[in-house]
Amino acid sequence: MKMSQVLVPTLRETPAEAEVISHKLMLRAGMIRKLAAGIYEYLPLGYRVVKKIESIVREEMDKKGGQELLLPAMQPAELWKETGRWDVYGEEMIRLKDRHEREFCLGPTHEEVITDLVKREVKSYKQLPLLLYQIQTKYRDEIRPRFGLMRGREFIMKDLYSFDRNQEGLDESYEKMYAAYSQVFQRCGLDYRAVEADSGAIGGNASHEFMVIADSGEGVIVYCSKCSYAANVERAECILPKADNREVVKELEKISTPEIKTINQLEEFLNIEGSKLIKTLFYQAYYSEEEVLLAVLIRGDRDVNEVKLKNLLGCLDIEMAAEEKVAEIVGLPLGFVGPIGLQGKVKVLADQEVMTLVNVIAGANEKDYHLLNVNPQRDFQVDQVADLRVATEGDLCPKCGETLKETRGIEVGHIFKLGTKYSEALKANFLDENGKTQPFIMGCYGIGIGRTAAAAIEQNYDENGIIWPMPIAPYHVIIIPVSNKDEQQMKIATEIYERLLEIGVEVVLDDRNERPGVKFKDADLIGFPLKVVIGPNAGEENIVELKSRKNGQEEKISIGEIVSIVKERITQEIK
Amino acid sequence: MKMSQVLVPTLRETPAEAEVISHKLMLRAGMIRKLAAGIYEYLPLGYRVVKKIESIVREEMDKKGGQELLLPAMQPAELWKETGRWDVYGEEMIRLKDRHEREFCLGPTHEEVITDLVKREVKSYKQLPLLLYQIQTKYRDEIRPRFGLMRGREFIMKDLYSFDRNQEGLDESYEKMYAAYSQVFQRCGLDYRAVEADSGAIGGNASHEFMVIADSGEGVIVYCSKCSYAANVERAECILPKADNREVVKELEKISTPEIKTINQLEEFLNIEGSKLIKTLFYQAYYSEEEVLLAVLIRGDRDVNEVKLKNLLGCLDIEMAAEEKVAEIVGLPLGFVGPIGLQGKVKVLADQEVMTLVNVIAGANEKDYHLLNVNPQRDFQVDQVADLRVATEGDLCPKCGETLKETRGIEVGHIFKLGTKYSEALKANFLDENGKTQPFIMGCYGIGIGRTAAAAIEQNYDENGIIWPMPIAPYHVIIIPVSNKDEQQMKIATEIYERLLEIGVEVVLDDRNERPGVKFKDADLIGFPLKVVIGPNAGEENIVELKSRKNGQEEKISIGEIVSIVKERITQEIK
Repeated sequence: MKMSQVLVPTLRETPAEAEVISHKLMLRAGMIRKLAAGIYEYLPLGYRVVKKIESIVREEMDKKGGQELLLPAMQPAELWKETGRWDVYGEEMIRLKDRHEREFCLGPTHEEVITDLVKREVKSYKQLPLLLYQIQTKYRDEIRPRFGLMRGREFIMKDLYSFDRNQEGLDESYEKMYAAYSQVFQRCGLDYRAVEADSGAIGGNASHEFMVIADSGEGVIVYCSKCSYAANVERAECILPKADNREVVKELEKISTPEIKTINQLEEFLNIEGSKLIKTLFYQAYYSEEEVLLAVLIRGDRDVNEVKLKNLLGCLDIEMAAEEKVAEIVGLPLGFVGPIGLQGKVKVLADQEVMTLVNVIAGANEKDYHLLNVNPQRDFQVDQVADLRVATEGDLCPKCGETLKETRGIEVGHIFKLGTKYSEALKANFLDENGKTQPFIMGCYGIGIGRTAAAAIEQNYDENGIIWPMPIAPYHVIIIPVSNKDEQQMKIATEIYERLLEIGVEVVLDDRNERPGVKFKDADLIGFPLKVVIGPNAGEENIVELKSRKNGQEEKISIGEIVSIVKERITQEIK
Repeated sequence: MKMSQVLVPTLRETPAEAEVISHKLMLRAGMIRKLAAGIYEYLPLGYRVVKKIESIVREEMDKKGGQELLLPAMQPAELWKETGRWDVYGEEMIRLKDRHEREFCLGPTHEEVITDLVKREVKSYKQLPLLLYQIQTKYRDEIRPRFGLMRGREFIMKDLYSFDRNQEGLDESYEKMYAAYSQVFQRCGLDYRAVEADSGAIGGNASHEFMVIADSGEGVIVYCSKCSYAANVERAECILPKADNREVVKELEKISTPEIKTINQLEEFLNIEGSKLIKTLFYQAYYSEEEVLLAVLIRGDRDVNEVKLKNLLGCLDIEMAAEEKVAEIVGLPLGFVGPIGLQGKVKVLADQEVMTLVNVIAGANEKDYHLLNVNPQRDFQVDQVADLRVATEGDLCPKCGETLKETRGIEVGHIFKLGTKYSEALKANFLDENGKTQPFIMGCYGIGIGRTAAAAIEQNYDENGIIWPMPIAPYHVIIIPVSNKDEQQMKIATEIYERLLEIGVEVVLDDRNERPGVKFKDADLIGFPLKVVIGPNAGEENIVELKSRKNGQEEKISIGEIVSIVKERITQEIK
């Protein structure tokens, strides 16, 4: 492709709308443009990246026996009503009516449609397992679409659904997908981690997220540097360290803490660490028929993991309780509430760590007072003890006991064991070996295609632009004649261009009548992995320059060898 | 792929919902399933066909310098309001509101979006020409979705848009696409014709349809067997034969034709041919501000071409007028109305052929009477003479004068010269060589991908099922061991299967535990171009059978040679 002919409208300035690096750089490099909030146009170079990711995904799905099909985006409401998700999805689901006033949605996902298809077409255990997938456009009316391809309203996903006859079958399908996903992200040239995840609203009983490691990631991961353990902090299990030699238990003591309402104020006032405090937090838990106020006790320097709390309670939703609500039931201002005597007024839950603390500080349940030397068991009881905190760097690995580290990542893939949630709701059954009717055991497995492209940038960029990993670069190499008015430079450049094309290298010739600075800047911004520079003396010296975008390395290479060396560099980096 | 593992739910019975062959066979062969009216699921084999067509299309677009991009399906109403098509599209456009009550449609086409993109990103003539295309899902809420993939509400199209600096540029882009489309349908293995077409509601001033020849086609084509002329009958120009030696003009004569109201009755009653009659038809023409009744005179055996009539009038729509309306204005029952004395009461148009007729019969404008020896000019005048009839077999070729033939076809592609219709509406301009602002000169070029698959079936089937052309067959060859319980047969079958896979042949092994009849029936229904049959004596005789789906030819081939012969047959048929 010649640069003068391709639609790649690069920008010098960063558009104001963009907040994160990948969004900024995809706009600046002329890869995407916004049509409406969360709705993007993929321009030629951006779409090449997307297609490369798609084709890696397709190959890895096919290797595991995946069969590609294509399901509609426009889906009748009836199916969603059968599973109950027509209501659950709320405003995030895009709904419409056809000319006959029939209700449809634009599929945010395809469990309903695929389960209905398999229900109609698959009758016997002999036809199982089935791994069916598509690469397709999905719709979610995000309340705050943002970050470019990271969180769009119309976006491309690969979704695979597995159908098995029993739990062992599902485990096997899940293992296949775990392996396939690992291959996909490795082949894309990305540094990623598979982490244990909470399965959230989709339901089911096992789940991993595939995270591309990047400082800008929304997801926080703890991982073990010794064993393979890694988990989303939302999900990571916290274990208690072995009991130390315990301090001697001291007597309770009431101290005056006038106007000290927050943990931070208390730490400062008493000059102590958060680890020597018990926080008492109040939550409102929502069930289908009622609301319940409850107290959660946690160490002063810890955060409550609301996902764990919600899962423990089995409620529909939770939120921090309003101060008036607490005052009404407990009869006290928030800042001075403590665990002693609280039981009975509300349900009291404690993070397991709280129950191991000795001689700590807590609210006195009296305005302007706290208590020193509070000791669980001796001084107060609770209704339930559980693992309720967010994991953090320095925690112990629940697998091997080593200290955990923390990093950030971007979720690009998610695999779930669904079990029979959808097959039961839609009455999707098969006949087993004994002629008995059984619901299909399902799994679902998604990869955000555009999001993977964006995550690749978040992991690979510098101040000059994108640094595409070779396997998903829009083109592998750009040839830059320093001056396109110098006939000899253009002749050499064109020859190398044609020789590279002949052997199937994806190459761009920058034939534009632009200053060298503009060409280099654009090449760096777009992020071609390799640059071949034809300088003024190239003809005389028979030498061109090969530059690596990744490490900036420059080599002088003879014109005779350049084609084979470029080919070799590309092959090295594409597995 | 092993047949036991692929989701291909073949049916013995034809589903009641299907009217046309391609729809019936795609359902029966397990290639598609209906999710809702006009909304289909592409199952694995059907989707393979779609992807093959897509990849041929992609290659041919790229060869002409086309750049692939991807535009959103969800499009903001504002753009469509700017071009005025938000209202024009009516109920065929699927509309929705997002959570913020902003109006969107699901794109039935992408002129608005692409023109807006190019307006924003392309500033100079130096960046032209541009050929931008996508393969994408479109939405049209057809009032009567039917015929499976032929007329769906959610369907896959390739749409390319050309942007040029002047008319010569557009002509060149149009030529490129004409050539590319010819290549696409030839490479798909289809018998097609490019015909001149009416450009209809999309606007513009030149247009060709690409029609796959099939008896079941909705489109009627006249074509010249001598020169390259071919045209949709809606568009085909009718020319007058050279004047014969004219009959001597006779005197008008009134005859009684009691209760004779239709042309057929009249032909029978007088025992004459339709070519000796003038029909007087009444139309209601609708303009934005008014409705007009008008009469159209045409030879008794001809049909009025309503497209030509509408184009001539420049009205929004036309329809046959109601009898009461005619009676009210003309003061007569329909069956006896004739051209004499009609002028003045309504506007009278005549097909050009009418004005060359001599001594013909027409209504007498008196109940139960007709006139003999009516002669135009002598007996009546009209307001306008034009080419207003539908072309038909036997007409003269407007290019070379040879007699035209007629055939039927299915429209699979359509190319248009749009000119500046959209660029002017959206103020999409560039700066020309002289620094002057000019609107982009545009063309648009569509291929229905699913429709091409369906048309291929309409052209290639027999009583047993589909006969896929090799280039778009879901797989090239199926291996059928007559009994999968015979170990030796299975061993030979598996060996051949693996050898074919190794050399990149797309092969299915029918490893199902089914009767041979079932396997053969399914193979014919699905339409694999080649069958390799492993019989009971295959091992002993070292021979297998190769059967061609297309011509039924059977050959006995040694096991040693089968792989290379299969490969050769495939290569012969894929250009």
